[in-house]
Amino acid sequence: MENLVILTTGGTLDKDHDTFTESLVLGAENVTNVPELLRIARTHFPRVQPIMSLDSLDMTEAHREQILGAVKIVPEQHVVITHGTGTMDQTARFLDGKTGDKTVVLTGALRPFALGKSDAGFNVGGAIIAAQTLPPGVYAVMNGRVFKPDGVKKDPKSGRFDL
Amino acid sequence: MENLVILTTGGTLDKDHDTFTESLVLGAENVTNVPELLRIARTHFPRVQPIMSLDSLDMTEAHREQILGAVKIVPEQHVVITHGTGTMDQTARFLDGKTGDKTVVLTGALRPFALGKSDAGFNVGGAIIAAQTLPPGVYAVMNGRVFKPDGVKKDPKSGRFDL
Amino acid sequence: MENLVILTTGGTLDKDHDTFTESLVLGAENVTNVPELLRIARTHFPRVQPIMSLDSLDMTEAHREQILGAVKIVPEQHVVITHGTGTMDQTARFLDGKTGDKTVVLTGALRPFALGKSDAGFNVGGAIIAAQTLPPGVYAVMNGRVFKPDGVKKDPKSGRFDL
Amino acid sequence: MENLVILTTGGTLDKDHDTFTESLVLGAENVTNVPELLRIARTHFPRVQPIMSLDSLDMTEAHREQILGAVKIVPEQHVVITHGTGTMDQTARFLDGKTGDKTVVLTGALRPFALGKSDAGFNVGGAIIAAQTLPPGVYAVMNGRVFKPDGVKKDPKSGRFDL
Repeated sequence: MENLVILTTGGTLDKDHDTFTESLVLGAENVTNVPELLRIARTHFPRVQPIMSLDSLDMTEAHREQILGAVKIVPEQHVVITHGTGTMDQTARFLDGKTGDKTVVLTGALRPFALGKSDAGFNVGGAIIAAQTLPPGVYAVMNGRVFKPDGVKKDPKSGRFDL
Repeated sequence: MENLVILTTGGTLDKDHDTFTESLVLGAENVTNVPELLRIARTHFPRVQPIMSLDSLDMTEAHREQILGAVKIVPEQHVVITHGTGTMDQTARFLDGKTGDKTVVLTGALRPFALGKSDAGFNVGGAIIAAQTLPPGVYAVMNGRVFKPDGVKKDPKSGRFDL
Repeated sequence: MENLVILTTGGTLDKDHDTFTESLVLGAENVTNVPELLRIARTHFPRVQPIMSLDSLDMTEAHREQILGAVKIVPEQHVVITHGTGTMDQTARFLDGKTGDKTVVLTGALRPFALGKSDAGFNVGGAIIAAQTLPPGVYAVMNGRVFKPDGVKKDPKSGRFDL
Repeated sequence: MENLVILTTGGTLDKDHDTFTESLVLGAENVTNVPELLRIARTHFPRVQPIMSLDSLDMTEAHREQILGAVKIVPEQHVVITHGTGTMDQTARFLDGKTGDKTVVLTGALRPFALGKSDAGFNVGGAIIAAQTLPPGVYAVMNGRVFKPDGVKKDPKSGRFDL
């Protein structure tokens, strides 16, 4: 029941502290910490395919078309997409109804993996299980909950994805 | 769709390095790192109820009866149990068929949470999703995979739960 | 040979990731991670006294007067000051020649303590030893080296304090 | 004022959790985490030379002769030795008076570097400064304090090196 791929698009999960600018930045294009996250998780099976490296606030319709294209073209039926939390809801609604018999699960993190004490491992661990157990469709998994595209909503006060 | 509780029983997940004996030990009875793990995961919703604090190699039939009793008595329908990996398969088979309409998911870790670079967050994150998405029954979730009681088996060579 | 105090002033060492603004920020006034750093270092002896909580780029002559006042008034003869790296050189030169028979050592970090994989523990560990072993005067200790006030200089290319 | 080398001999600092035996073990001979510790500390200057990889309780007179030989033969005048805490006092007294005009500083850790929340970086940071600031002789630096060979003593109750 593997048949699972992780597509990475950037977002907070993959940011790190930059000494020179003293800010959080994404690495060079297609650089992702997801393989290291999986190594620590001791789960070596999902293939990881970086498709872009963006702050999700910079994501345009063209980027969402590119993500949809990647979901369709990969051979796996179960797809996890790592994504910034800022516009995860928009991408979920964009993909909704267009992904055929695939189970697609968006996830991300509120604190970068590279900073430690991050929710990244917990969220990706949940998304990988959701992608294997849920029926075809588009979902988001954040902080222990499964959301349908209409229910994905980051609470700006708590910084969490609450129902 | 919360209605979820985490019962903790000890195991590697909750061990830590002891300066004096230079070995890995469990804390005092009922001490667990799961609340701290959930804080980092930024998922505050599951209630955590410690029921014992044991290396799973020391677990007896009486302990398994105690776990079963706790599963039955808690009001939640979705139950995650943190458990040592050494005898997780025995407890899964012990519980199998006795838990009514509850969804029960065993999980644990191969490296203690307190040592960093642990699979604990990833595994618990997966188990929490599995407990909400799978039909009633007994399962184990380890390192990105869902196992039925007959399929739970730690590979002593790889230290992983492989199919 | 203790007779040592740590005065904290803020700087990168004490910044942390803020979920809402997605930037690195200092906590509320006088909040510092130095006591937690000392707990991990298992060195409980230095008294920690927060005197301000500033990005060192925002530090004015008035703040430097306040630091000098604190150095003079504390009863300890050996003083470590945690400080942002951006203007550590200016504060070192400001204090130089004004601190009597005290040994004063400035230190800081290029990556926040709270982000993990930080140089904070290493730098503070070095500064505490320098404050006990060097003759009276003003110094900076960063990344394994001792600098006199004239030699404190952050290399903007390497992000290190090179000779 | 560099002219500094770090000789590694093993000890708790370099242990890690082993999944299969569930205990703390040293890696293969001459494997050490000190280069990674220095990378995080952003201090690239000290040469690191592994000379053995032992639990210090297994250290014999022959091993101490080997350490003394290494101290004498390296070209650097300032020498830090990473060492297990169990017999650091014996090695300090063995080396005392035999190291000519070199400044030799023993250090170690009470919690392995690889387990996180370790005192290793703090201790090595202090030892590197001590080796540059103290006159020739043999010392130990642990948890913020400098000890002469006669004063090195691990308190079995607190797990610290107290005066």
